[in-house]
Amino acid sequence: MKDYFVGNAEYFKGIGKIKFEGSGSDNPLAFKFYDEKKIIDGKSMKEHLRFAVAYWHSFCNDGVDPFGSATHVFPWADKDHMTGAIKKADAAFEFFTKLGVPYYCFHDRDASPEGNTVLESEKNLEKITGILKDRQDETGVKLLWNTANMFSHPRYMNGVATNPDFSVLTHGAAQVKAALDSNVILGGQGYTFWGGREGYMTLFNTDMKRELDHLASFLTLSRDYGRKIGFKGTFYIEPKPMEPSKHQYDYDAGTVIAFLKANGLDKDFKCNIEANHATLAGHSFEHDLQVCVDAGMLGSVDANIGDTQNGWDTDQFPTNVYDTARAMQVILSMGGFSTGGLNFDARIRRNSTDQDDLFIAHIGGMDTFALGLEIASKIREEGKLDKMRTDRYSSYDSGLGSDFEKGKFTLEGLRDLAAKRGEPDANSGKQELYENILNQYMFGKN
Amino acid sequence: MKDYFVGNAEYFKGIGKIKFEGSGSDNPLAFKFYDEKKIIDGKSMKEHLRFAVAYWHSFCNDGVDPFGSATHVFPWADKDHMTGAIKKADAAFEFFTKLGVPYYCFHDRDASPEGNTVLESEKNLEKITGILKDRQDETGVKLLWNTANMFSHPRYMNGVATNPDFSVLTHGAAQVKAALDSNVILGGQGYTFWGGREGYMTLFNTDMKRELDHLASFLTLSRDYGRKIGFKGTFYIEPKPMEPSKHQYDYDAGTVIAFLKANGLDKDFKCNIEANHATLAGHSFEHDLQVCVDAGMLGSVDANIGDTQNGWDTDQFPTNVYDTARAMQVILSMGGFSTGGLNFDARIRRNSTDQDDLFIAHIGGMDTFALGLEIASKIREEGKLDKMRTDRYSSYDSGLGSDFEKGKFTLEGLRDLAAKRGEPDANSGKQELYENILNQYMFGKN
Amino acid sequence: MKDYFVGNAEYFKGIGKIKFEGSGSDNPLAFKFYDEKKIIDGKSMKEHLRFAVAYWHSFCNDGVDPFGSATHVFPWADKDHMTGAIKKADAAFEFFTKLGVPYYCFHDRDASPEGNTVLESEKNLEKITGILKDRQDETGVKLLWNTANMFSHPRYMNGVATNPDFSVLTHGAAQVKAALDSNVILGGQGYTFWGGREGYMTLFNTDMKRELDHLASFLTLSRDYGRKIGFKGTFYIEPKPMEPSKHQYDYDAGTVIAFLKANGLDKDFKCNIEANHATLAGHSFEHDLQVCVDAGMLGSVDANIGDTQNGWDTDQFPTNVYDTARAMQVILSMGGFSTGGLNFDARIRRNSTDQDDLFIAHIGGMDTFALGLEIASKIREEGKLDKMRTDRYSSYDSGLGSDFEKGKFTLEGLRDLAAKRGEPDANSGKQELYENILNQYMFGKN
Amino acid sequence: MKDYFVGNAEYFKGIGKIKFEGSGSDNPLAFKFYDEKKIIDGKSMKEHLRFAVAYWHSFCNDGVDPFGSATHVFPWADKDHMTGAIKKADAAFEFFTKLGVPYYCFHDRDASPEGNTVLESEKNLEKITGILKDRQDETGVKLLWNTANMFSHPRYMNGVATNPDFSVLTHGAAQVKAALDSNVILGGQGYTFWGGREGYMTLFNTDMKRELDHLASFLTLSRDYGRKIGFKGTFYIEPKPMEPSKHQYDYDAGTVIAFLKANGLDKDFKCNIEANHATLAGHSFEHDLQVCVDAGMLGSVDANIGDTQNGWDTDQFPTNVYDTARAMQVILSMGGFSTGGLNFDARIRRNSTDQDDLFIAHIGGMDTFALGLEIASKIREEGKLDKMRTDRYSSYDSGLGSDFEKGKFTLEGLRDLAAKRGEPDANSGKQELYENILNQYMFGKN
Repeated sequence: MKDYFVGNAEYFKGIGKIKFEGSGSDNPLAFKFYDEKKIIDGKSMKEHLRFAVAYWHSFCNDGVDPFGSATHVFPWADKDHMTGAIKKADAAFEFFTKLGVPYYCFHDRDASPEGNTVLESEKNLEKITGILKDRQDETGVKLLWNTANMFSHPRYMNGVATNPDFSVLTHGAAQVKAALDSNVILGGQGYTFWGGREGYMTLFNTDMKRELDHLASFLTLSRDYGRKIGFKGTFYIEPKPMEPSKHQYDYDAGTVIAFLKANGLDKDFKCNIEANHATLAGHSFEHDLQVCVDAGMLGSVDANIGDTQNGWDTDQFPTNVYDTARAMQVILSMGGFSTGGLNFDARIRRNSTDQDDLFIAHIGGMDTFALGLEIASKIREEGKLDKMRTDRYSSYDSGLGSDFEKGKFTLEGLRDLAAKRGEPDANSGKQELYENILNQYMFGKN
Repeated sequence: MKDYFVGNAEYFKGIGKIKFEGSGSDNPLAFKFYDEKKIIDGKSMKEHLRFAVAYWHSFCNDGVDPFGSATHVFPWADKDHMTGAIKKADAAFEFFTKLGVPYYCFHDRDASPEGNTVLESEKNLEKITGILKDRQDETGVKLLWNTANMFSHPRYMNGVATNPDFSVLTHGAAQVKAALDSNVILGGQGYTFWGGREGYMTLFNTDMKRELDHLASFLTLSRDYGRKIGFKGTFYIEPKPMEPSKHQYDYDAGTVIAFLKANGLDKDFKCNIEANHATLAGHSFEHDLQVCVDAGMLGSVDANIGDTQNGWDTDQFPTNVYDTARAMQVILSMGGFSTGGLNFDARIRRNSTDQDDLFIAHIGGMDTFALGLEIASKIREEGKLDKMRTDRYSSYDSGLGSDFEKGKFTLEGLRDLAAKRGEPDANSGKQELYENILNQYMFGKN
Repeated sequence: MKDYFVGNAEYFKGIGKIKFEGSGSDNPLAFKFYDEKKIIDGKSMKEHLRFAVAYWHSFCNDGVDPFGSATHVFPWADKDHMTGAIKKADAAFEFFTKLGVPYYCFHDRDASPEGNTVLESEKNLEKITGILKDRQDETGVKLLWNTANMFSHPRYMNGVATNPDFSVLTHGAAQVKAALDSNVILGGQGYTFWGGREGYMTLFNTDMKRELDHLASFLTLSRDYGRKIGFKGTFYIEPKPMEPSKHQYDYDAGTVIAFLKANGLDKDFKCNIEANHATLAGHSFEHDLQVCVDAGMLGSVDANIGDTQNGWDTDQFPTNVYDTARAMQVILSMGGFSTGGLNFDARIRRNSTDQDDLFIAHIGGMDTFALGLEIASKIREEGKLDKMRTDRYSSYDSGLGSDFEKGKFTLEGLRDLAAKRGEPDANSGKQELYENILNQYMFGKN
Repeated sequence: MKDYFVGNAEYFKGIGKIKFEGSGSDNPLAFKFYDEKKIIDGKSMKEHLRFAVAYWHSFCNDGVDPFGSATHVFPWADKDHMTGAIKKADAAFEFFTKLGVPYYCFHDRDASPEGNTVLESEKNLEKITGILKDRQDETGVKLLWNTANMFSHPRYMNGVATNPDFSVLTHGAAQVKAALDSNVILGGQGYTFWGGREGYMTLFNTDMKRELDHLASFLTLSRDYGRKIGFKGTFYIEPKPMEPSKHQYDYDAGTVIAFLKANGLDKDFKCNIEANHATLAGHSFEHDLQVCVDAGMLGSVDANIGDTQNGWDTDQFPTNVYDTARAMQVILSMGGFSTGGLNFDARIRRNSTDQDDLFIAHIGGMDTFALGLEIASKIREEGKLDKMRTDRYSSYDSGLGSDFEKGKFTLEGLRDLAAKRGEPDANSGKQELYENILNQYMFGKN
C-alpha cells in the first residue's frame, strides 16, 4: 500500500516516500537528521517545525531569471491552463506526501490561472479550491496560508493598494476577497500579504503618505471581510525592503509592526519573517525574528537563505545550521508556532534541473532545521547561555535598578546616584565565550 | 573694524571674513553661490538654511582613524584641558564669525573636558557654558542644539540607557542633566540624542525588549527634566543603523518615529536626519526626510554625504547638488525649519591638513545647499513637478476613489467595482521625464 | 521631406525628428543640451559622444522582471518570429533616425530569432543581417558593435566557454562565428563579449582554473576567426561582478585586463565598461574607466546608471551629470573614442509604458552626456584641476625623485635619504577644494 | 615545572597552560576540539594549522574605535616606551606559550616604539629584536612573519610607496629595510606588505598609473634588499579593497596576483589572504583562497571573520565552522602551508574586557579551525565531493573535448560539431546536493 498520494498520473516517478535514514546514509533521497516522530521537549519534530512547501517555487518556478529563459520542465504543464492546474495540484500533493510535510502555501495564481475577467478568475479559483480541498481530505496535508499574487500582473506595476489609480486597487480587492473565500474553505491557518509592488520606483512621482493611508484602509477592509466570512486564523505581513520596487513600504519587521500598530491592525496581523528579506534589509534573520517576538508579533517564517555576496533575493534553501539553530532558539523562546510554521519560500537553483533536485533541496532544508531544533532545544534545556544573558541584567532585578524600572526615579535622582557611586566597574560582554559555547553545542559529540 | 570675532589670540590668521564673490571667482575662500542676504521666496538664504558648525568635527577631530593617528594640529591645544577648552571656544567663535554661520552645535565633551568625578565634569561644563554664553552675546551666533557625548567613554561600551548595568545608566543621566542645564543657559533651539552605543554587538548577550524599555524611560525622564527647567525647544533623536555598534536601535527614521509614538514621546521629540546615516540604512537621504515630514517629525538635519563605495560613516562635506536640491524640496514642502537647521556633521578628510581646508570644506557645503535651495525653490514656484505628481492621484480626489478614502467601501464593494469596470488602463510612471526636468532646473541657463 | 526612416509601417506615430530646442524648452521630446553640431574642442558633440541605441533594451525588453510579466507592448510583434524580426528592424531604424543617433548595438537573438537548429539560427541571422545592411545604407546609421546572446538559452545555464560540458561550448562557438560573420557584413566597429553565465553559482561544483583556461581558448579561437574573415575592429570584454551568476569571472576592469594580458589577448581586446557594473563591483564608474585608460584598454562604454540602494543591475538611463562629467574627463584624457562609443545599455522602467517614454529616456541620457562633455571639456581647457593634480607629483619630476623613477636607487639608498632629510612636511590632499571647483564648473553661470 | 614562559612578571595571572579537554568540557579556558598532537592525514593538527598570534591586536589594541576611547588595560604599559615594549614582549611570549601556538606575527611599531628620527626608530627595533630572539630561543615559538606599519603615522596619510611626495616614500623604505633586518635575525618565514594607505581618498587628486609604478619599484627594491641580506622566506601582499582609504590598490587576490605578474614579482611574492578583506571585496573567503591556489600564489592566511551586516573590517575571531571547513579544503588541496600559516588577525570586541577574553577568543578560533581541518580532511579522504566535481568536466578528459584543450580546434570546427551534434542534454549543477553532503560531514555523528 502506498504511503503517498498519486493522482491520475505519477509525476515524480521512481521516487517514493522519503524516509529518515540517519546521518550516515549515502542516499540523497533520505533524511539524515529530520526524524519526524522524534520527540524534542515533549513534541515531535513534525509538530515543532510545521514545514510547508511553497506551491510557487516548487511547481511554478520554471527557472526564468532576468537574463535567461526556463530550464525546469514541468510534466504537468498543459496548453489548457485549467487542465494544467488540476494536474499540477496532483503533482503537488504527490510531492507533499512523498516528502512528508504537513502543510503547504500558495498564491491564487500559482494554483489557478488568471482569467480574462474578474469573474472568470474567481471561477477558476473556486474550482481549484474544491480540488485542493479534496486532496487535503484525502491526504491530511493542510493549508498553512494562502495569499493573492498582486505583483505579477502588469496592472499592478505601480502598486495595488498603493496604486495612484483607484481602479487598480479595486482589482487587488477582488483578488483578496476571492483568496479569502478560498482560504476559509480550505481551513487555512493564516493568510499572508506580501506587497512587492507596494512601494516606489522613484520618490519623484510618489505621495508616500497618501499611499500608506490607502494601504491601511485596504488591509482593514480585508481583515473585516475575512472575519465576516469566518476566517479565524492570523493575517501576516511579510516584510521586504526592496525588489522588485526600489523601496518597499514593508521594509523590515520593525517598520511593519509600527505600521500595524499605528493603524489598529496589530490584533489581527502578525509578521511572516523571511530570512533573505531580513538580510537584504541589513539585519540578521534572528534579529527580525527577535523584534517580532518582543512585540508578540511573530506569526510565521519563510525559511530560506540568501547569498551575502549577492544583493538580491536568491531564495536558496536553508542549509546553514548556525542560522537555523539561532532561529529555533527564538522560536522556542515564544513557545513555538501557533498558526504559523516554516514555509520553504525557496527555489532550487536555475541549473538544478534533475527531477530529484526538488526533493534533495527540501530534504536539505528540513534536515538543517531539524539540526537547528535539536541544538536550540539542548541550549534551552541546559539554560547556560540564557542564564549568562539574564545575569547581565541583574542590577535591574532588585534594589535601585528595580526602582528605576518601576518609574521611581527622576533624572536628577539618577544623576545623584552616579555622583555618589562613582565610576562603575567594566563588565565584559563576553561575546567570544557565547560564540565558543554555541560551537560546543553544535559540534560537541557528547 | 573687524567683522568677525577674535579672542585672546587669532587662530585662523590670514583668513578674514568669507564673502560672496559669485560663481566666477577663483578665490577658494569665497562663496560662489551662497549669498546670505539673497531673498528666495520671501526669506533670505541665511534664514532658510540656518547653517550650523559642528564643534566636534571642526575643533576636536584630529584626523585619527582606525588605522592611523592624528594629522590635524590644533593651535589652541593646551596641556591643561580647561585652558585648552577656553582657547578652543575662542577659535570656534572666530571660525563661526569668519565663516558667517548663524548657529553651532556641540557635545558636552567637545567643549568641556571630562572630569574625574561627576561633579568635576559638571563644573567644567558650567564654566565653559558661561564662556560660550558670553561669546554668543558678543557675536550673535546662537546654539542650534547641544548633546551629551555618551559613546566615547569606556564606561559606555555596553550602552548607556540600554546598558545592562544600572550604574552606567545613572552616569548617562548625569550627563544629560548637565547638558540640559547648559542648553537652557545658552538658549538652545534643540537638544539631540544620538545613541551610538544604544544597540548591540551581539544578540547572544542582549535582551532587546528590556533595553528598549529602559531607553524609553530614560528619554522620558530627560524630557521631563528639560521641560521642568524651562527648555522650550525640540528634542531630537538622530537615527543611525549601526557603527560603532553592530546594530543601533535608532535604525532609521521610520524606526525612531515608531519608537517615539509607542512611548508617548512624539509631542516633544522629532528626528535629526543625517544624510550618511540614511544611506547606511539602505535609504536615500530624501527618503528619510520625507518619512519624517509625512509624520510631522522632521526636526533638524545633519548635513553631510557618505561614499557609496564605503560601508561606514565617512561624514564628508555635502558637495552633491542633486542631494541638496532634493533635500531642500522636502524641507521647503514643510514650510522650512522651525527650531532646526542644517548642521555640518561633516569632517574634512584626514589628509586635508591645510589651515584653510576647514573653511574650504564649509564653503563648499554652504554653496552646495545654496544651489539646492535655489533649484528647489524654482521647482516649487513653477509647480510643474508637483502637479505631475499630484495629478497621478486624481482618481482619489473625487467620485468613488474619494468615497474609498472616506471609508465608504467594503472589500466586496471594491470587488464589484473591479468586476464592473474591467481592466484598468496602463499609466506610465514617467520616471525618466521627472529626471529630465530636474536636470533642466539644475543646468538650464534660462 | 522626411528626415527620418519609416519602413512599411510607422511605429512611433506622432513623434517626428527630435530637435535641439535649448534648456528652456518645455517640450519633453526635444534636446535641451545635446546639440549634435555644436563644436567642442574641434569636434562636434556627435563625433565626441558617438551615441548608440541598444537593440535589446529598446526593442526587446518587454518589462518582465523577476516578479512580474510584460508591461511594454510592441506593435511590431508578430506570431511569425521572422516577420516580427523584420518589422522590429524597421521600428529600430525609425527610432534611430528620429532620435538622431549615429550608431546601434545588438545581440544576435535581439534581431533574429533562435532557430530549431544551429543552421536555422544561422539562416535567420543571415537574412536579418541583409535587412540591417540595407537599412544602414539607407539611413547612414552604423553598427557600433554586435554580440552573441549566450546567456538566455537554457543550454547555457552552466556557462558557455566555461561550461563543464564540451557540447555546450560548441554551441557558443557556433553563435560567435555567426555573429562575427554578421559583423563583417555590417561593418561593425567592435564586437563584444559579455559572459553573464561565465562564472559560478557555487564553488562546490566548480573548477575555476580549468574553466578559465577554456575561456581563454575560446576567446583566442574567436579572435583568430574574426581576423581571418576580415574583422578589423576591436573585441571588447564587458566586466560585471555577478548576476545572473553568483560570481562572474569578468569581475571588474582590473580582473579583465589581467586575464587578457595573461592570455596574450590584449592586442585585440579592450574593455567595454558599464557604469552599473562598475558600481556593483564596489568601484565608481570613473574608477573602472581610469583603470582601463591607464592600461590603454578602454574600448567602449555602456552608458547607464544603477541605484545605490539596490544591489542588482537596474540599468537606468544616465541622468547624473556628476557621473558623466567625470566620465567624459577620463574619455577626453585618452583623446576620445576610436572604435567605441556611448551605448545606452539602459532600459526604461517597467512602469514607463507610454510610447514616448523610450524617446524621453534617450533624450535624457544624451542631454546628460552632452552636459558632461561640455563641463569636462571646459575643465580640460582651463587646466586648473589637472595642474593641481600634476603638481602633487612634482617631487618625482626632477632630482632624486626622478632618479628613483629611473631605477637609480636601492632600498638602502632610500633609507639613507630619509635619515638625512628627516620628517617630511604634511601636504594636504585638498579633496574639498577639488570638489568645490568641480561644482563651479558645473553650476557656474559665467 | 612550568610549561610556559614567564618573564620578570606574570601578566596573565591565574591562567596556566591551555589544555585540550574535549568537546564536553565546561572549562572556558580549555580546547574543546583543538588537540595539537592529534594526527590528521599524517601530520599533527599543530603542523597543519600553524597558528600564529598577532602582536598588534593582542597586545596593542586598546579598544579604541572611531567613536570611543580605550577599554582594554594593559598591565605591561609603561610611561617609558622602551620599558613598556620590553614588558610587552614578556607578556606576549607568556601568552604564546600558555596558549600553545607555534608562531607569532608583528609590525615594527607593535613591538618597538617609533623614535624621533629614523636612526632612533632603527635602534629601538634592533634592541627589541634582540629580546624577541632570546624569547624565541627560550620558548621555541617562531616568527611566522613580520611587517612594517606604514599606515598609522601621519606622514603616510597620502600613501607610502604611492605617496605623491618622494620624501615620504623614503621613510617607508627605511622602515622596510629595518623590518627586513629584524626578520632575518629572527628567522621569519615570511614578510608581509599591507598597504592600507596605498590607494586613494579621491580620484580627483590621484595619478593611479604613476602611483602603481612607484609601488612596483618599491616592492622590487624591497625584494632585492631582502634577498641580498639573506631573507629566504616568502614575501606576501595582503589584499584589501578599501578602509582606511576609499580604494586600496591591492583590492583582492585577483588584482594583487595580476600586479605581481605584470611587475615580475610573482616568483618572490605570494598572497596573504584575510577572510574579512575578501568579503569586503565582494567575494567569499574560499573564493579568494581558491584564486590564489589556482595561481600557485597562496602564501599565508589571516584568520578572522567579518560581520555581513557591517561594511567595515570588524576583524572578529573566526567562529564559523562552515568557513573554516571550506578554507581548509582549499588549503589541503595545495598540500598545506609551506612558509605560511593561520595568523589570528582578529581582535576581541571592544567590550570584551576580562583578562581571560583574549584566551577565550583564541581558543575559539583554534577550535573552529581544528573542526574545519577534521571535516575537510574527512571530505578529502572519502573523495565523494571531489569526485562529483571532477566528473562534471569529464567531457574534456578524452575525445573531442580533450582535443579542444590541446588546441586542435578552430572556431569553425567547434561550430560544425554543434551543428552535427544538436542540442546538448541538461546537466544539473546539483548545488543543493553538495550542500547537503557538506552538512552530513559537519554534523554526522558516525
